[in-house]
Parts: sequence; C-alpha cells; structure tokens
Amino acid sequence: MEELIQKGKNAKKASYILSNASSVAKDNALLTAAKNLVTQSATILQANSKDLENAGQNGLKGAIIDRLRLTEERIAGIAEGLTQLAALDDPVGEVESMWKRPNGLMIGKKRVPIGVIGMIYEARPNVTVDVFGLCIKTGNVTILRGGKEAFNSNNALVEILRSSLQEAGLPGDAVQLVQDTTRDSAVAMMKLNDYLDLLIPRGGAGLIQTVVMNSTVPVIETGVGNCHVYIDEWADKTKAVQITYNSKTHRPGVCNAAESLLIHEKVMAEYLPVIYEWLSKKNVEIRGDEKVCALLPDARPATEEDWSTEYLDYIMSARVVTSAEEAIQHINKYGSGHSEAIVTENYTNAQKFLNEVDAAAVYVNASTRFTDGFEFGFGAEIGISTQKLHARGPMGLKELTSTKYVIYGDGQIRE
Amino acid sequence: MEELIQKGKNAKKASYILSNASSVAKDNALLTAAKNLVTQSATILQANSKDLENAGQNGLKGAIIDRLRLTEERIAGIAEGLTQLAALDDPVGEVESMWKRPNGLMIGKKRVPIGVIGMIYEARPNVTVDVFGLCIKTGNVTILRGGKEAFNSNNALVEILRSSLQEAGLPGDAVQLVQDTTRDSAVAMMKLNDYLDLLIPRGGAGLIQTVVMNSTVPVIETGVGNCHVYIDEWADKTKAVQITYNSKTHRPGVCNAAESLLIHEKVMAEYLPVIYEWLSKKNVEIRGDEKVCALLPDARPATEEDWSTEYLDYIMSARVVTSAEEAIQHINKYGSGHSEAIVTENYTNAQKFLNEVDAAAVYVNASTRFTDGFEFGFGAEIGISTQKLHARGPMGLKELTSTKYVIYGDGQIRE
Repeated sequence: MEELIQKGKNAKKASYILSNASSVAKDNALLTAAKNLVTQSATILQANSKDLENAGQNGLKGAIIDRLRLTEERIAGIAEGLTQLAALDDPVGEVESMWKRPNGLMIGKKRVPIGVIGMIYEARPNVTVDVFGLCIKTGNVTILRGGKEAFNSNNALVEILRSSLQEAGLPGDAVQLVQDTTRDSAVAMMKLNDYLDLLIPRGGAGLIQTVVMNSTVPVIETGVGNCHVYIDEWADKTKAVQITYNSKTHRPGVCNAAESLLIHEKVMAEYLPVIYEWLSKKNVEIRGDEKVCALLPDARPATEEDWSTEYLDYIMSARVVTSAEEAIQHINKYGSGHSEAIVTENYTNAQKFLNEVDAAAVYVNASTRFTDGFEFGFGAEIGISTQKLHARGPMGLKELTSTKYVIYGDGQIRE
Repeated sequence: MEELIQKGKNAKKASYILSNASSVAKDNALLTAAKNLVTQSATILQANSKDLENAGQNGLKGAIIDRLRLTEERIAGIAEGLTQLAALDDPVGEVESMWKRPNGLMIGKKRVPIGVIGMIYEARPNVTVDVFGLCIKTGNVTILRGGKEAFNSNNALVEILRSSLQEAGLPGDAVQLVQDTTRDSAVAMMKLNDYLDLLIPRGGAGLIQTVVMNSTVPVIETGVGNCHVYIDEWADKTKAVQITYNSKTHRPGVCNAAESLLIHEKVMAEYLPVIYEWLSKKNVEIRGDEKVCALLPDARPATEEDWSTEYLDYIMSARVVTSAEEAIQHINKYGSGHSEAIVTENYTNAQKFLNEVDAAAVYVNASTRFTDGFEFGFGAEIGISTQKLHARGPMGLKELTSTKYVIYGDGQIRE
C-alpha cells in the first residue's frame, strides 16, 4: 500500500535523527507537546465532537462512546502524562555491562532505540498521545493506525504532536497517523517488514489475535488475562478474603483482574461462604464446580469453557482442588500466563507456586491487581506482555529499547 | 498437521518437567548423551551412509555432501560440544534484580526457560545435537524439523538423545524430530502458535526469509551479514590493512566476514594498493566504484546490486567516501545490521561511528570476525540475531531464556 510505504520511508529517516537525539531534545519535545495540547484543546474538542456525532449516528454503544470522548479535563490529564514522562530517566545510551576479553577487546552492551514501532489500536484517542510520548522518550518513531471511530480526534492530536516536534527541533515524521482506516491498511501494516521493527496491537482480544496470527512483523502480544487466585489449605483467612475480593472487584474490566478462584478442599467449608459474602457486595456471580455449588446455593454450575474465560466483568469461576499441585496444573492448563496468586502461610507451597506456575507475574499473598508498570515502579507502561520473547509482564521504557554491542579494539584480528 | 499437534502436546508436557529440572539433572543428560553418541557412533555412521548414498543419487553438490558427512572424529567433536556445555553456568533461576515497593511488595525478575523452541534447518546433522544441547541446558524443549537430506542421520541421533534423556531421568520428549520432511511440515510449524514459544530458522538466506515472512510463531532472524570495514582518513595504515584482510579472508563463507570496503578519499591512493596486494594473496576479486577502479586496474566496476550483496566468497565491493558521515550513511542504507568496523585513530569519528551505525555489533579498530558467542565470551552460541527484539548479536545461553516476575507479599491489596 502506497501510503504505508511512504510513511515507512519517512519514519526511517526520522528514526536516524531520533535515535541520536539527546535526552534534553526529546524531553523538550514532550513538554512542548504537553503545552500545545492544552492551549489547542478547543481544536481537539471540535474534532472529537465530529467523532462523537458519527459514533451516535452509527449506533455505537455507551462504553465505546465514553472511551472516545475527550474533555478539557481529559486533555489536561493526557498532557500531564507527557510531563511526567519527561521527568523520567532516559534508558537510551546506558551501557548495561562492559567486559574485557583476553585479547584486549572491550565489549560493551549498550541500550539503543528499537527504531520504528507500529501501533494498531481501537477507539481511544488518548492512546495516540501515550504512544507518541513513550516512543519519543525512548528515541523511537511511530506509525499509528488508530480506529476509524477516532479518526478526526487522532488527526487533530497528531497534527499538534507533529508541530510540537518541529518546534522542539525534531522531525515531525517521528509520529505519523495512517489516513486509510480500512482493514487494508491494518493488513498492509502487518506485512511492512521493510520499515517496521515492531508492531504492537492494543485493544480487545479479537484485535490482538488477528495481529498475532497475521503479522510477519515482530509483534508483542499484550493484555489477555485469565488470572487466578489459589487459596491454599494453609491460607490465612483474612488474607484469602481480602486478596480474592480485591483481585476480582477492584477493577474487573482490566487484564490483571482475577477471573477464577481455586480453593483447597480443607478450607472450602470455612472460607468460601465468607468470600462469597464479600463478593456479593458487588453482586459477583459465581460459576462453580460441584463442590462449590453445593456450598453456595446461588452459584451457577461452571462449564468447561468457563475455566478459560476472561469475563472482564463481575463474574468469577470457582473450583475446589485437593492440593497445590492440582491448582498449579489447572492454572498452567487454563491460564493465559498473565498474573497468578497463591494465598498461603506454607513456605514450601509458596515456593512451589512461584517456581512452577508459568506466568508473567506470580504472587504470594498479594492481589493480582499489582501487575502494572506504575505499581512495579517503572513510571510508565506501554502494555503488559503475555509472551515470552523480548518482554514479559509490564513493559516500561526499557522494554521499548534494544541493545547493540560496541567494541573497542586496538587492531585486533582473529587468528 | 496431526504429527505436529501431537508433538506439540508431548513437548508441552516435557516442558513442564524440564523447566523445573535441576542443573545437575540437565547436565547429567548432556554428559550421558555425549557418552552415548560416541559409544553408538557405528549406528550413527550407518544411518549417515544412507543419507550420503541418497545425496549422491540425487546429484547433490560437494559442499552440501561435505556438510552432511559424519565421521568418528566429527561425532567425537559433537559429543565434546555437549561436555563443554555441561560445564557452563546454568542461567535459569537467576534473579536478575529484586526491589521493594513502598507498600512492602518485594518484586524479583527471575530467569526462566522460554518453553518450547522449534528449529527449522537444512542439511547439517551436527545442528541436531547442538540445538538439543543448548535447549536442554537452558530447560527448554525442542521440536526439530531438519532437512530431508539428513533424515536418516537425524533420526539415529535423536533416538540416542531421547534415550539419553530417559537414562538421566528426564522425558525423552524434550527432543522430537519431525518425521514429515515435506514443505507441509515446515509450513505447519510456522503456524504452530498453540505449542511453540519460539521458532529459529538456521540455514541459507532463502530459508530464513521464508520463515520470517510466513511464521506467526515469534521468530528470531539470524545470520545474514553484509558487513563493512570503513577506513577513515585518520586510519593507521597497518591496522587498516590487517583488519580488512582478516575481516575478508579469515573465513569468507560465514556471516561475520566483511563483504564491502569503504575508504576515505584522502588515504585511498596510499592505502588501497597495499590492501589490494594483501587481498590478492587470496585472489580476492574487487568490485569497485569509479575511483577504486581507477586505482586498481584489476577491479571490476560494481553495480548497485553489489552494495547489498553478501558474497560469502573471495569477492569484496569497494567504494571511496569523502567523510565518516558518508560511510555511516552507506552502511545504514546497504548493511544488514550485523557487524560493522571503522579503522581510525580519531576519537570523534570513532564515537560517531559507534553511536550512529545501526548494527548488532559495531567495532573500532578490530576485525568484524569477532562477532561470535565464543569470541564474546558466552561459551556457547545458538546463532547471531540481526533483529532488534529479544536478542541482538550473538545469542548465548541467556538469550534462550525469558523472565518472570516473582512477587512476595504479606497480604497487600490495591487501594
């Protein structure tokens, strides 16, 4: 597709400059953009109202319209995000380690930008600015392919971002918005190996699966979380109740919310009714196995499908197990490798769970809700990777970099 | 494809055991395999002779037949490789860093195996054992899809490897050889996302491109090297001559050999004839631009295509440049991002080259031939990555691992 090839070429040129730009220049661009987004918020809101009008005409649902909507306050929040990013340390240029070989060669491993990062996302215009910020901070350039629902908002935002880059002495082409919002442009982006170093899909499970299964550009898979809380026979009752309640109900629509409860049969009779009492405050529906349903008369019987389902809602599947091993096996079979927690006071079971559960983040006696770049102390987050290559778990600034070996010689040749 | 799905399921089961196996158990398996390969070399050689016979009948060329051929000595060398691997440190289980959050959560980043690694490769049976060794050492399991030319040899080798694993108390399914050697099995492997965590192609540029462009399983791209030596106007003459000669002729058929020479116009008249004199000892053919051809009467004129060509032979393209900038631009345009060297005594040009050349390994005053896991001090190598995600440059044992976050709490919930 002509548009993408041209944008790919522009991006490559800009990437050479960005990858060698100083932290000061990059932070200046972020602060300039933060300022301009606020002063030009009227322009953004005008474009956004067009998107909202179209959304209404196209019969989009309330939740999508809410995600699409910008306000003065939301724009201020988005701009504040850029200001915070500017204050973080720049990971680019750090030499992680350097060692001397017997022949005298000094070999250093240095952090460098990845290069050109493509992003395919859905209806949230705030993603446009977030991704711009994370990429510029780390010396990367980005080609954005947002959803058609947010087309006018995205164009208004990107225009401001591009002129802010130029105002700060950096190339505007460090951020480009794909103008074709048909399926064709998404497909073309997935095959743009000559220009893209990385493609990140951000959105629902359907979008992510489509990109993973069709892209020949390297992809980082983010976001799907079928997370479990396992209450061991040695669990402290208060911790068991609070962690289950927090993991399920603190924010059920996000990927680190728990979807499934596993409980040891020795404590089920004592703990489960109390846990259910708490969950009932938020009207959580339980889908349980036979033993759970026998204890909780309101529970619905779970189907095989329930064990693999990410509800993203006030629903929780629940199963009784007879050992930590059985819990681990269940999690490794049905989980999505996101966040898994055990509640126990038993040292051996805690260690076993940490070692044997195959997931990006494994917890002892804490809520699954902590899997998050900010909660981990990274200061920023581009997503939560559920794959094993390059980055696993919350991705901060460092995960948006690559490395190169820099080698200092004084005439060494290989014998 | 039924065979691959079944092997995928077997691999997943074995992976659970391997990822939790102790270093002692894994090293025992490597040493047992080393012993058995030597004691059962007659069986291997018999299978190999069938492959050689078929190769002869199918009219394969000398170089391929040489790569295919096993001897007592070569088998001993392959076994010795496993013994050396057993002596290296196991990267799995290392906690790279651990930090405490304000809420008291202790978050650690721990090295874990990747899981199931697929390998598609061509005619070398030694790759079968090498990959087995690297995978077992790092707690990974592997599904091997070797070329049909080495089918009998690979089956004999894998049978010994599988029984060695069992002898050492580990599951034989930690290594499996795909029996279907048609194109279908390679294609099916590239789409085996449910079972493979990573796919590594090893072989010629054609094979690697096919896998990169068709695989939906994450791929690590290895091996293509269009490497340059740039002789700056401030280059020391002796270093310039020796580094060019070594980079080009030490072993021209490998990916870290130099394919192209860039030389500053201020030193071309003095240095180029001497360099050519040296290269002529090995009958290196020069394909030069106008200025090079004017200086070297035997040089052939280079075409545009020459600048992007990895000859893997005693051929070198050569171009005169007027600045370090021009050299860097040429390299970033035509290079494959593998290994690039500058020869200079000038501090600023050295730093500029290190910073601005976009490649896995960038050298000052040293031969490009050092880009290699052993030369870098890693003790092992599975390939040299020319992509930017996960691993870049020589991949050792550490690059065959992923990480997971292990989080120690005492009842923390998110407020």
